[in-house]
Amino acid sequence: MIFRQLFDAESSTYTYLVGDEVSRQAVLIDPVLEQIDRDLRLLDELGLKLTHVFDTHVHADHVTASGALRERTRCTVVGGVGGAACANVQVRHGDAVHVGPLVFQVLATPGHTDDSVSYLLGERVFTGDALLVRGNGRTDFQNGSAAQLYDSITRVLFALPDATRVYPAHDYKGFTVTTVAEEKRHHPRLAGRSREEFIHIMENLHLPNPRKMDLAVPANRACGHPAPPPPEART
Amino acid sequence: MIFRQLFDAESSTYTYLVGDEVSRQAVLIDPVLEQIDRDLRLLDELGLKLTHVFDTHVHADHVTASGALRERTRCTVVGGVGGAACANVQVRHGDAVHVGPLVFQVLATPGHTDDSVSYLLGERVFTGDALLVRGNGRTDFQNGSAAQLYDSITRVLFALPDATRVYPAHDYKGFTVTTVAEEKRHHPRLAGRSREEFIHIMENLHLPNPRKMDLAVPANRACGHPAPPPPEART
Repeated sequence: MIFRQLFDAESSTYTYLVGDEVSRQAVLIDPVLEQIDRDLRLLDELGLKLTHVFDTHVHADHVTASGALRERTRCTVVGGVGGAACANVQVRHGDAVHVGPLVFQVLATPGHTDDSVSYLLGERVFTGDALLVRGNGRTDFQNGSAAQLYDSITRVLFALPDATRVYPAHDYKGFTVTTVAEEKRHHPRLAGRSREEFIHIMENLHLPNPRKMDLAVPANRACGHPAPPPPEART
Repeated sequence: MIFRQLFDAESSTYTYLVGDEVSRQAVLIDPVLEQIDRDLRLLDELGLKLTHVFDTHVHADHVTASGALRERTRCTVVGGVGGAACANVQVRHGDAVHVGPLVFQVLATPGHTDDSVSYLLGERVFTGDALLVRGNGRTDFQNGSAAQLYDSITRVLFALPDATRVYPAHDYKGFTVTTVAEEKRHHPRLAGRSREEFIHIMENLHLPNPRKMDLAVPANRACGHPAPPPPEART
């Protein structure tokens, strides 16, 4: 298997390339619009054919490259049910997505947003913003719910084997990966804390909205294509 | 084996943590002074004891944490011969450094600087600034030599098995890793080019000096401790 972690410094987003060495089919997980040329070139240099894009959720902090990649490669865009209506496939908990012989299991992990899913491939899980390294996504917009996120992390992700490698959609401190065992032990909002404590922490963060949110959310609901202006704005 | 790639966004530096799961001994390769608290905390959380720091060379773009880590943990500081005089061990091509049962082979890879070494551990090689993803370090100071760097890359690093994973000390585009096979095929200054062409390219880059160079080089020769001011400056 070919595996690459890629970083977009402007939005601190991790994109993952996973490819099969025999069929040469590949998926990009959470690609960033501004990095489309870098990512297509890398696929080309590695001799891989992009057959899928997975988004873990409708992002608020960057614009997905899914639609643009679909136009360029005819790949299949996959997202969680209730998320981007433009996705070719909307997946639910328990679904499997095949990329050549690679089988990704879909885990519903709502809470950061209501459409958040994680993708499990063997000992790796791609958690989007549900579970980060010693952190987790905020829960104060896009139908986020701290209670739901607590359950997603502790009942779904922490139920995976301890050695499972957790690959997040973001990091802001220079970490690249963690494990289920590590987060169970060292997650500052979860280890040794109750569900109520987690909810209290999340409901009192008082974070400013992401800078690009008003652009990114509607764009991402359309796979990265900004929504057309409302009729009254067309003159 | 426990393996972590860590990033310092300010200097775009990768630091690597490699630890042994049984003896719990660990090494940090190219640690950054400003990240010492992050890195010591991670070692602690992973239940690892820092026994070694390896520097791949005397850096010009950031200050090493090697001296400060040695003070805090009594670890052994390892560097290439001719580099930082403060290192406990100055290694040469063909040396082996043991971190518990992990055996790192030292490869002399001069050219970016004259003291540059790479550390080979099984299928992974930590190349410092000698070989980056689709790039390489500059060769215009610290006794750098484009001719020497060409030889280091093509005769030493490209002689490793094709599947060897190359972990660089920096990346500026969001790549985290490459392989020997990939760089042989796709390195823009090497693939399909002669030694003379490489030297010509490197001698005509006309790059500005790194911002922190005047601070970093003397500090790094002293394992991160800034040199005392010259006598005439002491009043």
